[in-house]
Amino acid sequence: MSTDTNADADDESTSKCGASSTAETETETSSGSKCGASSSDPDGSDDSSSSKCGASNSDSSSSGSSCGASSSDSDDDSSTEQEVGATIEDFEADPGQLIAVGLGPGHAEGMTERAKNALLDADHIVGYTTYIELIPDEITEQADEIYDTPMCGEVSRTEESIDRTLAGNDVAIVGSGDPNVYALAGLALEILESKGATASMVDFDVVPGVPAAQSCAARLGAPLVNDTVSVSLSDHLVPMPEIESRLHSVASENFTITIYNPWSRKRRENFQKCCEILLTHRDPDTPVGIVHGAGREDEQVMITDLDELEDLGESEIIDMTTTIVVGTEDTYVWDDRMVTPRGYETKYDY
Amino acid sequence: MSTDTNADADDESTSKCGASSTAETETETSSGSKCGASSSDPDGSDDSSSSKCGASNSDSSSSGSSCGASSSDSDDDSSTEQEVGATIEDFEADPGQLIAVGLGPGHAEGMTERAKNALLDADHIVGYTTYIELIPDEITEQADEIYDTPMCGEVSRTEESIDRTLAGNDVAIVGSGDPNVYALAGLALEILESKGATASMVDFDVVPGVPAAQSCAARLGAPLVNDTVSVSLSDHLVPMPEIESRLHSVASENFTITIYNPWSRKRRENFQKCCEILLTHRDPDTPVGIVHGAGREDEQVMITDLDELEDLGESEIIDMTTTIVVGTEDTYVWDDRMVTPRGYETKYDY
Repeated sequence: MSTDTNADADDESTSKCGASSTAETETETSSGSKCGASSSDPDGSDDSSSSKCGASNSDSSSSGSSCGASSSDSDDDSSTEQEVGATIEDFEADPGQLIAVGLGPGHAEGMTERAKNALLDADHIVGYTTYIELIPDEITEQADEIYDTPMCGEVSRTEESIDRTLAGNDVAIVGSGDPNVYALAGLALEILESKGATASMVDFDVVPGVPAAQSCAARLGAPLVNDTVSVSLSDHLVPMPEIESRLHSVASENFTITIYNPWSRKRRENFQKCCEILLTHRDPDTPVGIVHGAGREDEQVMITDLDELEDLGESEIIDMTTTIVVGTEDTYVWDDRMVTPRGYETKYDY
Repeated sequence: MSTDTNADADDESTSKCGASSTAETETETSSGSKCGASSSDPDGSDDSSSSKCGASNSDSSSSGSSCGASSSDSDDDSSTEQEVGATIEDFEADPGQLIAVGLGPGHAEGMTERAKNALLDADHIVGYTTYIELIPDEITEQADEIYDTPMCGEVSRTEESIDRTLAGNDVAIVGSGDPNVYALAGLALEILESKGATASMVDFDVVPGVPAAQSCAARLGAPLVNDTVSVSLSDHLVPMPEIESRLHSVASENFTITIYNPWSRKRRENFQKCCEILLTHRDPDTPVGIVHGAGREDEQVMITDLDELEDLGESEIIDMTTTIVVGTEDTYVWDDRMVTPRGYETKYDY
């Protein structure tokens, strides 16, 4: 498995940026590593960093920042001369356009035409390094600047994208999956508001992408064709009791449940608790699909059942890049595919 | 509004195919129209038809079927000579490949590269006429045959696609949105199983697309960035008490709720009931986003609140092509955008 996709989000809050995190998810003793990693949540969220690294001024004079933020064009500092924390009053230029672009699953073929065009139109492309690497070279080569932070926080990166927009550039901030799924579209609006700017002022737009729930479901067969719910087990921004309450409420109804951010070293109890709650309401033989690194080189797919799920928490297949699909009482496994009937069989003879 | 996108799914079960349904959603007195329409559910599902029209043998000798099924190449009957209801034993050829392809939002730019390539590789493309029309001409022109049914059922169409596959053709069955969201991926697997075939035998695959929830959320701002749920109000395949129970369970938790298939003439009580349940658990001023015909020519976007929602059931903006996003207690409207905070504001100073 690649280091990028094994990063453990919760570590970042106590770590420094700029250093790589070498397989720390698998190695308990490496927890003191620097730049403990941003989340590599398959929908583009990395809701982990409390550090401000990456949001440091990316002016060419500070290109050696401790955060590892890189600019592909260090000679061009015209757009990046604002201090972080700047408000709308600090910018004299007419604002550019800000677009949150979802890249979809991990391969370039999973992008929409609209996402490609939005990236081609952008002056600057901002994103977590792993996601920037998903973008075909012919697109990134067209940009004036690429601002990527290898293992740093999304708050600072999003602020950077906004400052660059307010300084007059057309900016695309990218994530995998969809910008609305545990991802940066909302944060961009919140930061815009905090700066005294408006969404209209920067012509803010969202280019949707295929979310992890759907790209993973596609790998598993047809598990999500009825009412369905997404729950993230990350308690960095949502208290665990609230997550537990949500799990109880949906597990007792016949929803399929897609679990994002299922596991990290700091969150092993959350995963355990989730499995317990699911087993309180559903049979141990309820089918469960697991997709690790969907659309990426290290993709792994497994279909198991609820009874086996908890033990897999310690295995390589479940980490922050994994999406888990829990079937309903109607879901069955057939020819290595998960199928949740839509209900046609109650009406039709086939 | 276009007639295609106003079709009322529930009418089809009592109607004949082949005729158009002229704005019947708006005109109570037109309920006796022929071929009462398939659903134009924005995620590709049309879970409405109990008629078998459209599944009639599309051999060139029967191309004048009453269903309106058309074949773009009536001289080629080699692949379509099987009777509907055929099982795997009735086919002598080596099966082709069957791919369920999600077209994403209603415009061609919303398709992924992978979806385009899958369609270009297919011998036959099968789908509801409205969806076939979303595919660029340069793709449909490459296909040997296009099988589209203008207002008929998805069960027969899906069976048609499977029979064509088992007869040796590489077939793509298409829908808008994603094939896993209230759509045909599951039905295809169920029908394959009923015919004694297997998914492996036809190398069944799903090409995911951007679901309506995400394409609509993108139009509204950033309403879905936390835990979220999708519920369809169509009780054609799921009993209404079950839908009500699900709504109660998720409305009492802090999920955003995306409502599919919110309204039809035959289902006005479902919409009313849904509004009542939501108001039992959430404030009347909870923001609600409404997107009609996302990505299509007749797209309309409105942001309102829960208190106003019920009255809009009778208005043009809410029909079977509409997706409704109900905010949480944290969701707010800012600069004409719905924003559901991810929770960053509890941890970060910006």
